[in-house]
This record gives sequence, structure tokens and C-alpha cells, in this order.
Amino acid sequence: MGKLVSLQTALGHEFADPSLLEQALTHRSHSARHNERLEFLGDSVLNFVVAALLFQRFDKIDEGDLSRLRANLVKQASLAEIAGNLSLSQYLRLGEGELKSGGFRRPSILADALEALFGAVFLDGGYEAAQSVIARQYEPILQNVNAKTLGKDPKTLLQELLQARKLDLPVYTVIATHGAAHNQLFEVECHIPKFDIKVTAGGGSRRAAEQQAAEQAIAALQALAPVKGARAHRPRKSTQLSLPVAVPQEHK
Amino acid sequence: MGKLVSLQTALGHEFADPSLLEQALTHRSHSARHNERLEFLGDSVLNFVVAALLFQRFDKIDEGDLSRLRANLVKQASLAEIAGNLSLSQYLRLGEGELKSGGFRRPSILADALEALFGAVFLDGGYEAAQSVIARQYEPILQNVNAKTLGKDPKTLLQELLQARKLDLPVYTVIATHGAAHNQLFEVECHIPKFDIKVTAGGGSRRAAEQQAAEQAIAALQALAPVKGARAHRPRKSTQLSLPVAVPQEHK
Repeated sequence: MGKLVSLQTALGHEFADPSLLEQALTHRSHSARHNERLEFLGDSVLNFVVAALLFQRFDKIDEGDLSRLRANLVKQASLAEIAGNLSLSQYLRLGEGELKSGGFRRPSILADALEALFGAVFLDGGYEAAQSVIARQYEPILQNVNAKTLGKDPKTLLQELLQARKLDLPVYTVIATHGAAHNQLFEVECHIPKFDIKVTAGGGSRRAAEQQAAEQAIAALQALAPVKGARAHRPRKSTQLSLPVAVPQEHK
Repeated sequence: MGKLVSLQTALGHEFADPSLLEQALTHRSHSARHNERLEFLGDSVLNFVVAALLFQRFDKIDEGDLSRLRANLVKQASLAEIAGNLSLSQYLRLGEGELKSGGFRRPSILADALEALFGAVFLDGGYEAAQSVIARQYEPILQNVNAKTLGKDPKTLLQELLQARKLDLPVYTVIATHGAAHNQLFEVECHIPKFDIKVTAGGGSRRAAEQQAAEQAIAALQALAPVKGARAHRPRKSTQLSLPVAVPQEHK
């Protein structure tokens, strides 16, 4: 268990019962005493602690926005990123097959193990310990969350940016489709007349192409006419969760 | 606030900040300081506390069954029933329109207010206070939960009952349909050859009718050939959540 010292240091919790830590790191492919029940417990303590952190930090936003933020912060990709920061993959206990197929890199396995770790900390040290371990991972992220944009898709963001300037909505046009029916590529143009912005992007569906185009249009719009204050929330690299959507100040 | 003394007694928590209690009871139709943010917080502390209670009580069941049990225990109908036990409707603060349309009886409004109350207790007294208030409501219910059956639909339950006796699956037959296409009534027969059980039931869809028929078949099967121990978990009336599905020992 020597190497686990550094993991416990990174978590900020020293286990009174190290067998709980071991179980949290054990995938079901490895042995019968695996981490799935701990994951159930950890998922719920994580959801609660992040809810409480958001509730306290953002005292003006409504419950719909709180839900959107939380969903983004606890989704698999975000958890896998935190797991990466903790170098969790080097501590995982996987079965032969998972080892060979690179299971230690799989976002689902990493995210599940991280949740199981939070559950194990709760069992080991109670709520205060779990709260502290989770807050330690999330507080740097929360400092850089833009509550207005996190988790919104590019089309929604672009629409909101334009509405904030009292401008007309963007116009999306399918300009070409390629390939056969089951494997089509759509090319979509996004046009913002006021700024003479025309960008095109491709995607496997019309909607996907529109989102891609919206993301590019946001970048173009920001370059041409930055929104005041839009860079105020610019994340520091070290504590940023990479976002799946175009958030203007994070994409060039 | 006089009447709120009895509510606080029933909850087992005396608010240091009574304005939190008042806010939890305030529907958005009543005033701007309403309970929706508290509901977000309360929903997550409730999910976590019930997860932890289930984790501790049922140490042999897997995470899928834990999830099924929790979903059933925290769903709207279950919360509305707890709210009923607390006489929550008499404390609600609703706007004119909601008052006139009987909003104080609406399960969604009652369930949301109960969640908001749990959130308010957490803000007022911290995690331990919220855990204790929620456990006080749920522990009597948990004593009577049948982990094998709660939340399962009648067809699944019937199949499991028959499989446990190594018997063939039941046979469902549509014996009649009535009415026009948009408003059909299906009559379905459920047949268990081994016991010569044939019951029929109606429903607005084939699936709904099959579930109704399965529920009746379970009752018939239990009457003919009770499963050993099946009554051991019989709920005491006072602490039982009424279940939406056929649980043999709870329906006659």
C-alpha cells in the first residue's frame, strides 16, 4: 500500500481503515470486493456536497441554473479529469482483460472510482471528512466557473450573446450534404448579418453541424466585438475543467 | 408563527432562524422569497441521506437494487405521503390562484415543500441536523421495506415469484379491445397453467392491462400458495408508504 500514501495526501484524507481505500480502487473485473456499492454512496455524497457549494457561492441564481451547473460539474468527463489530476489510473485494481484493453484510461472507470473514493471517505471519516475532500477538489474549479455559460450549448450561448446586444438571431443554413444516408456529413453556415460574420462547420447531423458553426461564430464575434467583462472569469489553466461547449473566453 | 411549533416538533428540529422555515413553506405563487432554491438543496441532501441509510441497512444488495429502492423512497408520491403525515398542507403559503385551485393538496407542491424543509434544516443546523430529521421520517419506513420487491412492477414480480418456484412464465393474452383508436381499452388475461389461475384486467394500453392482470395474478397466487416468509415483512399500517405496484403481502 506504499504508493497509496501520495493518493491520500492528494485527497487530504488519511484512511483509518485502508481496506476501504483499497475497495474504492477495485474494479469489478478484479475481485468480488469491488467498488460499485461505494460508487452509489459516493455519487450521492458528491451530488449533495457540490449542490451545497453551488448554493452558497451563487446566491442569486435560480434552481434551474444550479441544476445545470451541478450536472456539468459531476458529469463523467469532469470526474475523469479530476481523477486524472489525482493520477488515479496508477492506483486502480483492474482484472486482466480490463488491464490489457487499457481500462485504466477509460473515463467511466476513472469517474466511477473517484465517486467510490468519496463514498469510502464518508464511511471512513463521516460527512465532514467527505465534504472536505470533495471541496478540496471542487473549490478551485468553482472559482473559475462562469455561472452564465457553463454547460450551455453553443447555439444557446450565441443566441444569448446576441440578445444581450439586442441583435437579431443568427441564421443557420445547410449549404451541403455529403455521403450516403446512414453516414452523412452536413455542412452548415452560421450567419450574423450585423457583423457580417459567416462561418461554416461540418457534423454528422444537422444539429451537430449547427452547434459547431455556432461555436465558431462565438469565437468570431468575440474577436470582432468583445463583450465587456467577458474575460473576467478567464480560468487559470491549473484549475480549469475543460468544457465540452464553446465558452467564448476559453476558446480562440 | 404559532402553529409552526407543532411542525417543528414533528420534524424534530427547532429552527434557530425561523425565516428559513417560512421560506421553505412558501410556494413561488405566494412571494418572491420562495422555496425553489431550498428545494434544490433539500433534494440533494435527501438523496444522500436515504442512500446512506439504505447502504447501511442493506449490506448485501448491489448498487442496482440500492438505486431502485432509493428511487422509490424519494419519488414524488412517497414524499407527498410523508408531507401528509406531517400535515404540511396546513402550513403552506400559496398564492391566490393556487389556493383556489386546491394547490395545498397537489402532490408536487407538497413534495417540493418537504424537500425545501430538509434543505432549510441543513442550512439552519448543518448536516447532522438534516440527517436526523430525514432519518426520523424514513427509519420507520425502512423497517418495513422489502428490498426484493419495492419499486418493481407487477409483471417483474410475478415472473420472479414463479421463477423462484421453478415454474413456467405466465401467459398474457389480449382477449378484447374496446373503443376507438385514440381511446382504446385493452382487456388482458394472465394465465398461470400450473395453478389454473386465469385473471383478467383492463387498461388504456396493452402494457397497462398486463400489469393490472399481473397484480391480480400475484394476489391469486399468494392466496392459493403463499410463499414461505412472504408475510414476514408485512408493514405496520402507521409507517407504510403505499406502493404503486403489487407487492403481494401488501395487497389482497
